[in-house]
Amino acid sequence: MISAGIVGATGYAGMELLRILHDHPEVRVVTLTSRREIGTRVDVMFPHLRKFSDLTYSDVDGGLEHCDVVFFATPHGVAMEAAPALLKQGVRIIDLSADFRLRDPEVYRHWYKKEHVCPEILAESVYGLPEMNRSAIRSARVVGNPGCYPTSVQLGLLPLVEAGLVGKGQIIADCKSGASGAGREANVNLLFCEAGDSLSAYKVAGHRHSAEMEQGLAPIANGSVGLIFVPHLVPMIRGIHATLYAPLANTGEDLQALFERRYASEQFVDVLPEGSHPETRSVRGTNFCRIAVHCPGNSRTAVMLVVIDNLVKGAAGQAVQCLNLMFGLDECCGLMAAPLWP
Amino acid sequence: MISAGIVGATGYAGMELLRILHDHPEVRVVTLTSRREIGTRVDVMFPHLRKFSDLTYSDVDGGLEHCDVVFFATPHGVAMEAAPALLKQGVRIIDLSADFRLRDPEVYRHWYKKEHVCPEILAESVYGLPEMNRSAIRSARVVGNPGCYPTSVQLGLLPLVEAGLVGKGQIIADCKSGASGAGREANVNLLFCEAGDSLSAYKVAGHRHSAEMEQGLAPIANGSVGLIFVPHLVPMIRGIHATLYAPLANTGEDLQALFERRYASEQFVDVLPEGSHPETRSVRGTNFCRIAVHCPGNSRTAVMLVVIDNLVKGAAGQAVQCLNLMFGLDECCGLMAAPLWP
Amino acid sequence: MISAGIVGATGYAGMELLRILHDHPEVRVVTLTSRREIGTRVDVMFPHLRKFSDLTYSDVDGGLEHCDVVFFATPHGVAMEAAPALLKQGVRIIDLSADFRLRDPEVYRHWYKKEHVCPEILAESVYGLPEMNRSAIRSARVVGNPGCYPTSVQLGLLPLVEAGLVGKGQIIADCKSGASGAGREANVNLLFCEAGDSLSAYKVAGHRHSAEMEQGLAPIANGSVGLIFVPHLVPMIRGIHATLYAPLANTGEDLQALFERRYASEQFVDVLPEGSHPETRSVRGTNFCRIAVHCPGNSRTAVMLVVIDNLVKGAAGQAVQCLNLMFGLDECCGLMAAPLWP
Amino acid sequence: MISAGIVGATGYAGMELLRILHDHPEVRVVTLTSRREIGTRVDVMFPHLRKFSDLTYSDVDGGLEHCDVVFFATPHGVAMEAAPALLKQGVRIIDLSADFRLRDPEVYRHWYKKEHVCPEILAESVYGLPEMNRSAIRSARVVGNPGCYPTSVQLGLLPLVEAGLVGKGQIIADCKSGASGAGREANVNLLFCEAGDSLSAYKVAGHRHSAEMEQGLAPIANGSVGLIFVPHLVPMIRGIHATLYAPLANTGEDLQALFERRYASEQFVDVLPEGSHPETRSVRGTNFCRIAVHCPGNSRTAVMLVVIDNLVKGAAGQAVQCLNLMFGLDECCGLMAAPLWP
Repeated sequence: MISAGIVGATGYAGMELLRILHDHPEVRVVTLTSRREIGTRVDVMFPHLRKFSDLTYSDVDGGLEHCDVVFFATPHGVAMEAAPALLKQGVRIIDLSADFRLRDPEVYRHWYKKEHVCPEILAESVYGLPEMNRSAIRSARVVGNPGCYPTSVQLGLLPLVEAGLVGKGQIIADCKSGASGAGREANVNLLFCEAGDSLSAYKVAGHRHSAEMEQGLAPIANGSVGLIFVPHLVPMIRGIHATLYAPLANTGEDLQALFERRYASEQFVDVLPEGSHPETRSVRGTNFCRIAVHCPGNSRTAVMLVVIDNLVKGAAGQAVQCLNLMFGLDECCGLMAAPLWP
Repeated sequence: MISAGIVGATGYAGMELLRILHDHPEVRVVTLTSRREIGTRVDVMFPHLRKFSDLTYSDVDGGLEHCDVVFFATPHGVAMEAAPALLKQGVRIIDLSADFRLRDPEVYRHWYKKEHVCPEILAESVYGLPEMNRSAIRSARVVGNPGCYPTSVQLGLLPLVEAGLVGKGQIIADCKSGASGAGREANVNLLFCEAGDSLSAYKVAGHRHSAEMEQGLAPIANGSVGLIFVPHLVPMIRGIHATLYAPLANTGEDLQALFERRYASEQFVDVLPEGSHPETRSVRGTNFCRIAVHCPGNSRTAVMLVVIDNLVKGAAGQAVQCLNLMFGLDECCGLMAAPLWP
Repeated sequence: MISAGIVGATGYAGMELLRILHDHPEVRVVTLTSRREIGTRVDVMFPHLRKFSDLTYSDVDGGLEHCDVVFFATPHGVAMEAAPALLKQGVRIIDLSADFRLRDPEVYRHWYKKEHVCPEILAESVYGLPEMNRSAIRSARVVGNPGCYPTSVQLGLLPLVEAGLVGKGQIIADCKSGASGAGREANVNLLFCEAGDSLSAYKVAGHRHSAEMEQGLAPIANGSVGLIFVPHLVPMIRGIHATLYAPLANTGEDLQALFERRYASEQFVDVLPEGSHPETRSVRGTNFCRIAVHCPGNSRTAVMLVVIDNLVKGAAGQAVQCLNLMFGLDECCGLMAAPLWP
Repeated sequence: MISAGIVGATGYAGMELLRILHDHPEVRVVTLTSRREIGTRVDVMFPHLRKFSDLTYSDVDGGLEHCDVVFFATPHGVAMEAAPALLKQGVRIIDLSADFRLRDPEVYRHWYKKEHVCPEILAESVYGLPEMNRSAIRSARVVGNPGCYPTSVQLGLLPLVEAGLVGKGQIIADCKSGASGAGREANVNLLFCEAGDSLSAYKVAGHRHSAEMEQGLAPIANGSVGLIFVPHLVPMIRGIHATLYAPLANTGEDLQALFERRYASEQFVDVLPEGSHPETRSVRGTNFCRIAVHCPGNSRTAVMLVVIDNLVKGAAGQAVQCLNLMFGLDECCGLMAAPLWP
């Protein structure tokens, strides 16, 4: 049995890890930490966990070094501070924050306004998108788990970029996210009466996740990728719908076949039949990514519709998928519960 | 491995059965029927099931007789027509409709405007509320699975009624249900723009489920129970919150202790600590019933707050709980996934 | 033209006052105050007001004394501090907080944990429920505008209580409110992901509004009223649905006729035809209260279904109705826009 | 007083017309027709209209010819059948369906699968987008009121196209609509439990409204406009958010100034300050269109964020704006109620 710790298990991603690992046959969560809630039973703070967990929050010093693996579901900056000591103890790390996502410490500093404190660990860390990086994840000591938007955007563009089919002009990533993507912080803008029954874009001028998308796709494209990323806040709880528009270098390619071929052996990427329109709820609570490929009008632009659950394939589920790879388990282990529908 | 069939697997309760049984280690669903969808793959009709089920809808004649157990998730009237033939083949039946809930065929006729066609089977059938009827369910050939409202109301009142603590006057069951309780039928009143951002009561003059509540509680109370039941439609997808007001025969009883004692050995009934207010989402996707007991003001009225997921403990989950009992499995088998939160 | 000031115009009730008064032909809002936002244009802070208001927030000292009337849409405690000085200047006051609702300073202190600072003004103030207190409101200098729950509960019970029809036993007020009733404060419990797709009761042990209901109804009942009040938070933005259960002293009364007679000359109270079930959205954005009266089962309990918009008839609209009375205008002036539907 | 008739006043657009005209000082609705509801009082069918309207549905023959103006809020095909006779009687027509939107009868046939029955009336009809066509609307006998998506897309692109700033490559119109845009029809896909808490695109292969956008913009662009239009269904009731991506012919233009100049004299188009992100709720219930202009990244693509209320500026409000122009009233008459917020 693999013993796991979760640092920051009071937010949505940390709680989702706890939910998923509760049903994982090979992992036991043994330590939950929260600076603010030391000594509180998790099911006192979160009564929906009554009968499911009797863990008590401990301090960060409370035993993480005895775990086989530690997940960080914390604000940016926490994981990189703790990583060196844990690694020395032989603990493997899966970080759901941005500390180990961006290869270049300068890029990290630009977007997160922090100096990276362990660039040498950053250098060995692996970007945890299994569909791109499977073998490196297997042997990683530190995994930087991808952001939710970058997961949906990269999975939707990868086949085109790899095949060299993207033409000149801008790629547009118009993304729509449920409110859980913004985290569980007291914020007037996220109140039911503010975010409910309304929709708006945000951070059009620049969003941190664009650096991560660029980093993932540019090397494959042999150069930079002209990507405009506009996120929107949607009055739903979970789910991301990425609508991707890519100019095509030439028309006439069978994009449906291309996508099906690329993802034929991927367990968690489902290429829908031609003409489909995936709903975000079709992946609610699951680690799946469903993709439909369209080529409307004059066929010079490919339109990909990509849905994931931002808390699962966009966060905790993907982290468990990485864990499965890192510990030699079946990649799907603990991740095959059917979606909650409706 | 127990082989199961689901009749009427295009509605919410039938689909929820399919979801739960997908993760059940001892049951395999082998037959799905739907008169309208014969020959359609279930994951073509419901793309959220891609990668989870490759079953194809068959006709009612399509092999149900080879199942160990058949679930009916159909409109009222279907199960009683099919029951005699299936029983002859040795198939056990769990009916999620009302055909086998009401002991008295007259009462059935009054509320469902249909003559009961197999009163002799009705006579041997068992009302499938395990917390009331566990041993009878174990040996039942036919189980009438309780309605969603009656499940929440009976579990919330049972300890008081059994203890003889209900005084004179009316019991009030003010119940609030998510829209999935109304089923998956094209109905203008249930459109997103009609049922959304609004709340109303319905059927105040009389709702079918009141007969079921009366039938369950009256014998225990040694007489009829004066119960006023008012259901409300709430703009949420899943969940029932029953707010129950019971006049007390005498004050000073320790109701908290009473409820905790009554449900101490029940796996799926969670009596919350004093002063709690359960949220419906705390049981989303699970078979749990959470109850808080209050005695505000002058202490002459007990107030119980009861939450269930109407599609799980109020329908498909309870049906699987009955299946587990009927086939000698652990009662919790396949029912212990943690709630989807948020 | 009547000149009005609004103190605390950054919350939902204050903003709703601004919305309603924008369309009022006889009132002009000349002063908005907010301690935190001094100098900010209201339409910079609230872009939905662009093209509707060019006012700038001022300090509380910024000219309120030149207004004919000042509304307080503030936390409890602010209005009573400011009232004496304003009254000396001849300004009339409509307070949407609780400072002038409760006749007895002791009761105020019990529920609001504050000493009342101007009991002599409290003594002359008038409770602003026009359907109970119309003539006193006309000549009032200070109006204590009713709470949202008490408005719905009192309007639903008044005809029965006045007619002496309430029998022994408890009256139950099971109330359901949209999230805007909780105000526009950063509060984790009110986040879209916390309050959405869920329902729960709160403050079952005791809610401040119960004192106000008791105060309104007891004198009419010639004694105290045994009222149990349980509020619930519903995933909708606006609206209150009060479901009221009153034991009847005798059966056989024509309650429908009683209610119709009682409210025949009331512009804002609509008694629906027998058998109706009002939806909260049927009054969205309006000052109406719609009531249906039922007498189910054995007819010993009356069930009233009452809907209001908590921000209009439950707050800002009722305040404007009071203003109309205080200044000799048509009571409906500025309040007859049709509901926003859907 | 102008007398108006509404044909098809049981859907959302027709009901919204009734709501807006109720508060219009110069118009009185005298006739409502509905084939299915002849003889029914509108406030019996729609209780939210109690105290607001005492009209009764009549047959189409029931007096429309005595109106000054008739609105059609009907399925496509109804208005063109009725238009010739009404025009002969001197009645002016504002059609909210598509019958008089598309100049070319062939294009109409292609998208609506119907032969146009009065091409000569179509030839004289005017496309009712005041910001493009104001003077023609003033003298029109027949107005084809724009679709909801085309209103948002054209208003968001017009300044760029007029200024010749759109470069080579595709314009992307990624549009998000609340569920009321789909109408008030019993449709399983629009149930609360199907459309709620989820998001999906639809009709990516081709949507009728694209023809209307192309028709409006191409002549200004002196050639066809390469537009890809992808609509999405969002779990909210009202509102459209169009996110428009236009390749720029050259960089360095001051787009903010361009938009402000273009709409300086438009009452209902609000160009927000630089860096803004309009919310759909900021126009809820109003005839306003709010636009923000961005130029992220390398500045080769303009991004416009456009919000309207699909039932007001996208349907009934725009129709009333046209009426005001046609009858020589102030263009804003009856359209200046502030948005319902929250």
